[in-house]
Amino acid sequence: MFTKAFGNELLAQNHDSTLINLPNNKIAFTTDSYVVKPIFFSGSDIGSLAVNGTVNDLSMSGAKPLYLSLGFIIEEGFAMEDLWKVVQSISESAKKSGVKIVTGDTKVVDKGKGDGIFINTSGVGVIEHKLNISPANIQKDDVIILNGDIGRHGIAIMAEREGLEFEHAIESDSAPLNGIVQKILDAGIDIHCMRDLTRGGLSSALNELADSSKSEILIDENSVPAREDVKGACEILGFDPLYAANEGKFIVFVNPKDATQCLSIMKTHPLGKDSAVIGEVTGGNETIVKLRSKIGTTRILDMLSGEQLPRIC
Amino acid sequence: MFTKAFGNELLAQNHDSTLINLPNNKIAFTTDSYVVKPIFFSGSDIGSLAVNGTVNDLSMSGAKPLYLSLGFIIEEGFAMEDLWKVVQSISESAKKSGVKIVTGDTKVVDKGKGDGIFINTSGVGVIEHKLNISPANIQKDDVIILNGDIGRHGIAIMAEREGLEFEHAIESDSAPLNGIVQKILDAGIDIHCMRDLTRGGLSSALNELADSSKSEILIDENSVPAREDVKGACEILGFDPLYAANEGKFIVFVNPKDATQCLSIMKTHPLGKDSAVIGEVTGGNETIVKLRSKIGTTRILDMLSGEQLPRIC
Repeated sequence: MFTKAFGNELLAQNHDSTLINLPNNKIAFTTDSYVVKPIFFSGSDIGSLAVNGTVNDLSMSGAKPLYLSLGFIIEEGFAMEDLWKVVQSISESAKKSGVKIVTGDTKVVDKGKGDGIFINTSGVGVIEHKLNISPANIQKDDVIILNGDIGRHGIAIMAEREGLEFEHAIESDSAPLNGIVQKILDAGIDIHCMRDLTRGGLSSALNELADSSKSEILIDENSVPAREDVKGACEILGFDPLYAANEGKFIVFVNPKDATQCLSIMKTHPLGKDSAVIGEVTGGNETIVKLRSKIGTTRILDMLSGEQLPRIC
Repeated sequence: MFTKAFGNELLAQNHDSTLINLPNNKIAFTTDSYVVKPIFFSGSDIGSLAVNGTVNDLSMSGAKPLYLSLGFIIEEGFAMEDLWKVVQSISESAKKSGVKIVTGDTKVVDKGKGDGIFINTSGVGVIEHKLNISPANIQKDDVIILNGDIGRHGIAIMAEREGLEFEHAIESDSAPLNGIVQKILDAGIDIHCMRDLTRGGLSSALNELADSSKSEILIDENSVPAREDVKGACEILGFDPLYAANEGKFIVFVNPKDATQCLSIMKTHPLGKDSAVIGEVTGGNETIVKLRSKIGTTRILDMLSGEQLPRIC
């Protein structure tokens, strides 16, 4: 099943580990386990998420994602047709983002000792530029650009979990970000930092970065794109879209002089057509994220304590 | 907890993926999930196994293991002191084998949806030689050398699981093989293939390699080292030591002219002092493993169908 779905000359080495000649010796390396529940949901599934999540973690470091490992932990009794659906989804997502599955492992655990399927993907990418893309490189006055509307992934999972039905299903925004990032890199934009919005949403990503870079960040709520149906669903469920999870959204930090060009490049990519400048690094003395609300008042945008929704990825 | 145990300048980048400058661009990449039960057992534990298993998969490809990723899937309610023991064990094992934990991820699943702790480690190593170490490079007349006695890991787990007590506890042989492999490489021995003995033991490793290389292999049972206590325990439990799992044992395939030198190099390493020539590639027309038994008869040594013991690693 796996050879059929992922077959490539590297996987075919059939050895304890896979030998790879990289285009250069500067790599990025990352890992993520995926335990999302349910495993199939509107617009995506655990397989596609396991590819996109790891591709995106590599992309956020400015790396070009090339190779993924794939580790399954399968609960005894998990349906073969579901495994096949997941494997197909991984295969399609890998093709879409241009990465190869080059090594893998499968473990089966007793019934009642797992939850259907858990997936780990680790990824290797190469760095082909000279930029310093890192939280430590966030600078005062940096402009923050977001590539589109927030919260769809979180709401899609929640709707599936709670059996909610909307007039039009809200689909997960899960997507690989390496294409749009490559466009920004190709244009020679001096990216200071990037971060994808996953667990904890926009708010948590901003707080983590404010903390790592010891910066003060100000976000304008009016500028943050969110679809009406997502906002409506959030209102019904008592969620805040600023904390809702995504898997195809990211923020970029650039010098103000590069902001207009960066924004227009992002808008030319299908995954960035709703890109918007959402705020800036004000660089006060505090490590803090502030939000200028729709009615003009300013409040602190805190880190989410705990998780708004567990097992979202 | 993790920063304290694994702290290094790469992990400290604190970004979505870790940037690494490799000594060269020829890498080996591998992944394994560890679901061993129980997680603590005589001589080792899931943490040490998760490091050694992945270090060994890299070593078997002739790579020098350098970097590991670490993915935890933890069941809600898992004791913090057990997590700390596992983390300490990972840290010590990583130091022992000279690898760094450079990126990681932790997911928590609901109580009853996991089994304490599952660990995935993926590994990156570099290739610093020009050899072709691969199942496809196994040749007629190759001599097969094993680095020591078989079956201890499998029996250690089984004893723990079944509450068996021996006069002297049989400890797992879990160990990192990169040191002994490096010695063979440094001596310039033309290694044709290596394979570590894990699930399914010596017999399964030989059958997999006979199959990948389309070779006939003949093993001499008298030459295969096994400790008396392990043989005794196997007899009581109805196991065959040839199928019992290991995590610190491997076989090397070399040209007959290199066999004596390879054997003596292996014997100078603590993990190879009981090394022995156990057989050869007879290169008949069949893809098969044959065993010359202690009483001189020859029988087919089959692949284990199913698993002698599940969740052994």
